[in-house]
Amino acid sequence: MKITLNEAAEKLKSVEKILVTAHINPDGDALGSTLAMYQALKQLGKSAQIYIDDVMPANLNFLPHIEEIKRPTENEKFDADLILVIDTAPDRIGKVENLTNAPILNIDHHITNKNFENDIYIDSNAAASCEIIFEICKELGVKITKEIATCLYTGIATDTGFFNYSNTTPKTFRIAAELVENGVEPNYISEQVERRKLEDVKIMSAALQTMEIYFGGKVAGLFIDEEVSKIAENTEGLVDLIRVIDTVDVAFVLKYKDENNIRASLRSKSANVSEIAKKLGGGGHIRAAGCTFNTNFEDAKNILLKTLGEYFA
Amino acid sequence: MKITLNEAAEKLKSVEKILVTAHINPDGDALGSTLAMYQALKQLGKSAQIYIDDVMPANLNFLPHIEEIKRPTENEKFDADLILVIDTAPDRIGKVENLTNAPILNIDHHITNKNFENDIYIDSNAAASCEIIFEICKELGVKITKEIATCLYTGIATDTGFFNYSNTTPKTFRIAAELVENGVEPNYISEQVERRKLEDVKIMSAALQTMEIYFGGKVAGLFIDEEVSKIAENTEGLVDLIRVIDTVDVAFVLKYKDENNIRASLRSKSANVSEIAKKLGGGGHIRAAGCTFNTNFEDAKNILLKTLGEYFA
Repeated sequence: MKITLNEAAEKLKSVEKILVTAHINPDGDALGSTLAMYQALKQLGKSAQIYIDDVMPANLNFLPHIEEIKRPTENEKFDADLILVIDTAPDRIGKVENLTNAPILNIDHHITNKNFENDIYIDSNAAASCEIIFEICKELGVKITKEIATCLYTGIATDTGFFNYSNTTPKTFRIAAELVENGVEPNYISEQVERRKLEDVKIMSAALQTMEIYFGGKVAGLFIDEEVSKIAENTEGLVDLIRVIDTVDVAFVLKYKDENNIRASLRSKSANVSEIAKKLGGGGHIRAAGCTFNTNFEDAKNILLKTLGEYFA
Repeated sequence: MKITLNEAAEKLKSVEKILVTAHINPDGDALGSTLAMYQALKQLGKSAQIYIDDVMPANLNFLPHIEEIKRPTENEKFDADLILVIDTAPDRIGKVENLTNAPILNIDHHITNKNFENDIYIDSNAAASCEIIFEICKELGVKITKEIATCLYTGIATDTGFFNYSNTTPKTFRIAAELVENGVEPNYISEQVERRKLEDVKIMSAALQTMEIYFGGKVAGLFIDEEVSKIAENTEGLVDLIRVIDTVDVAFVLKYKDENNIRASLRSKSANVSEIAKKLGGGGHIRAAGCTFNTNFEDAKNILLKTLGEYFA
């Protein structure tokens, strides 16, 4: 059942032992929001523990208290009055759901979250769950320490692409202003979050070597074949390297995942890549979509280019 | 002579014909601040013209009214009551200084500006000249239209590295909030500013192929020799591609500019690269410095690595 921000705050005040969690494959907003809430609850004298069923991303290991997050083991139990699930519906929390049968309070900003069987406070206008946690902290009278501010700022910065995505609102900037007043150093956060492994830079280098340009410059592609794919797992962000070319409308990365399992990621500035992906059995959004080919790499490339050619003919 | 924001605003109110200018090699803040001021003056019923003695950067051609900026020709004259010089001392405006003998009003945020013989309003706490122009617009009662807001936001975003540099303050974020309320779309600005030419991506690709790692990962370098340097003029930002590697403290780019003219740019996370550059006859800041070698490329590389080796030994 949907509840208000104030009701969510009251629910937190009324309990003592709180298990805080977020989605598997945690990102800056999942970790920033759970860590900020964890510190806020402790400040209020509550007993709190974060469990997340995954490993922590290396570039977020600077977040205050991240080392206190636990990963549930097989058959582990945890005694709690409430599970606070942030930044996701409770169906993406992995083994955390087996820890306790305590009632769930869900806080999220994803419009796709339809978890109305539990108490849920959802604000899909918030750029990040951290914006909501900031407001709950205010509601609860929590002092925004530098450590809490650092967690909240990181979640907001990562979910807005450092204030560059279309979800960035005046409220996002005003909250950022207040967090900087509470001690956040924007350049420190950015330097930490942007850290990359050497292998990530090596695959960037190898991927750029494969760049091809099509249809008078309107399409650009990178090709992570079996050999290149061995350099590094992480190919996130590669498509942005060629999306920025001034003539390019559609940028794509074609990636070998396994034999007869070739994945295409498409980004566009104006073309509807969701339609293009649909024709190839995939889907997504207008500006960001993808599809999978159950063929070898060469065939996948040919089919993709033929379909793009029909669009740009 | 230093004057106040209010005095600068009064001076602008008291004149009719205003020549607005900024530094040669104009960036987002130079163009954003002059274009915003130009529109503000016209809104107040003044006669205004921007002159800048340079070509306009292609990725800023989306700025409203940029096509109305003139470049002075040889011996050209312009009848004005006042020259408003923004974002620089009046010694970097090229041939604009020959257009008129009108008195100068200088507005800037660079702490290095020591132009005290003219009327100057300087605020070195402002992250960008556009922050100051925003405040002058308020002082003058100018309505911040979407077009003015777009210019101001672009200047603030580019001078703060999209809110990532250490000059980003709570005030920066609060002004950004108000500009977004006045119609700015952060994702549109970011997409426009980030546009790159194909050749810029090609030199990025070629440069990454030359990456070398030294001293247990603490130093990373890129080598733009004579051949690579032919791909593109613009090598800005290349050093950031390797600066982000998690083990790297000092990242450098060594670039062929001409025979016996090899330029090194150094960036660091903690080492004092200003000291390293000084040893090699250059200089700069603690985290960003550079020097020039009057040798061939190989010798320059060897000398640089020897000096870095002494630091990291």
